[in-house]
Amino acid sequence: MQITRSVESEIREIVSRYTRAADQRDGEALAQLYEADAVVEVHYHRGPDGMELLGTLSGGAQIAESMSTAMAPHPSLGWSHHTTYDHLVSIDGDEAGIETQFITFDVVGTPKPEGGWPTGTFGAQGAIKPIESGYYRFTFRRTDGVWRIRHQDVIHDIPYVF
Amino acid sequence: MQITRSVESEIREIVSRYTRAADQRDGEALAQLYEADAVVEVHYHRGPDGMELLGTLSGGAQIAESMSTAMAPHPSLGWSHHTTYDHLVSIDGDEAGIETQFITFDVVGTPKPEGGWPTGTFGAQGAIKPIESGYYRFTFRRTDGVWRIRHQDVIHDIPYVF
Amino acid sequence: MQITRSVESEIREIVSRYTRAADQRDGEALAQLYEADAVVEVHYHRGPDGMELLGTLSGGAQIAESMSTAMAPHPSLGWSHHTTYDHLVSIDGDEAGIETQFITFDVVGTPKPEGGWPTGTFGAQGAIKPIESGYYRFTFRRTDGVWRIRHQDVIHDIPYVF
Repeated sequence: MQITRSVESEIREIVSRYTRAADQRDGEALAQLYEADAVVEVHYHRGPDGMELLGTLSGGAQIAESMSTAMAPHPSLGWSHHTTYDHLVSIDGDEAGIETQFITFDVVGTPKPEGGWPTGTFGAQGAIKPIESGYYRFTFRRTDGVWRIRHQDVIHDIPYVF
Repeated sequence: MQITRSVESEIREIVSRYTRAADQRDGEALAQLYEADAVVEVHYHRGPDGMELLGTLSGGAQIAESMSTAMAPHPSLGWSHHTTYDHLVSIDGDEAGIETQFITFDVVGTPKPEGGWPTGTFGAQGAIKPIESGYYRFTFRRTDGVWRIRHQDVIHDIPYVF
Repeated sequence: MQITRSVESEIREIVSRYTRAADQRDGEALAQLYEADAVVEVHYHRGPDGMELLGTLSGGAQIAESMSTAMAPHPSLGWSHHTTYDHLVSIDGDEAGIETQFITFDVVGTPKPEGGWPTGTFGAQGAIKPIESGYYRFTFRRTDGVWRIRHQDVIHDIPYVF
């Protein structure tokens, strides 16, 4: 028996899947979360000076492609975590929205030395560093019972160079 | 049609709004989340030695004012993220509580060089650093259908100097 | 009147309690979250090369003991935060699962100088550093109305040395 999930659970899950697809650099999995003609706008928020539009992605193909153009591929022993926080959820019939804080962490493992780890080595070996932060604003629409992303703003706190 | 939200969603949203108001240094938005005579206690948890009370804020005016007295204003190109994790939620009629872990990140962007970004620059330009951590303990009360914060403990892991 | 909580809330709470027990190095509190014969597998995910099994804990006694063997005790003025993000929740009758991203932060406070803090000192005094990251995959089972962890994978992004 599959339990019926709340709308809030369903749209939160899309945000979770967004983070997984971004960290796997999986453009196809990412594009499936969006409507076919969805729009992603990437901004830099310059505090009191307002927002600067850095770029726009329109439609599934461009969104999928961004995984290989706008994000650097993981280096050897590298990974990332796009993480989201403190969601603000709004639901109105077949439309919904979530605003999150986000931080992206860059992860790079230390290669195991040829002679093995030195005596006394303990714990995780590598560097984990927050490299991006800001806000995501998602709007969702439900069509034929399936929620998908209709529009997304990615609002960076700090200058972002493509 | 606005969907009725669960009590858990409603009180989680107050925590999210708390983080937004803190990062915007918006004392008025902050104060509106609290009851008029709410109390905020700020502690330093010294491990096995127990808790040390660092300060108390009583009522909306003091809580609003804390945004300009207890928190440094954002520098140029600066921002912050108060982030919360792994909520423990309890609900009992018109009273409720949430305990969260928290980490506060300090964010400072790199100014764009006068001659533009050097060739090869890619990604977010600046430093994002965790500067505070600990636990928030919120208790809420529902009055006339509206949930507000009645009491909050801010429990810092590391010494905090005002 | 205690409000009935959703299954999703109940199993999310187990994840929250997991983080609390880990940070308190409280093996007994930790073990109570698991079934008596639960299994925890710790892996290192080496990207395209697949997963390497680092260790297995079987049953409550081993799980409780891991708090003093697999995790370093907190130093003086030290603490940690095991934090989880972007849950993927599945529920099917009396079985359920949650996959999370995780980051572990190491926290070390600065000791107060004998002569007190220097003039102009402001804010939290110490260092907060992300030291581990990866994914948790929990499966849960409900027995006699109580949800407990049946199996957990801890999947580290970077090499982990015991």
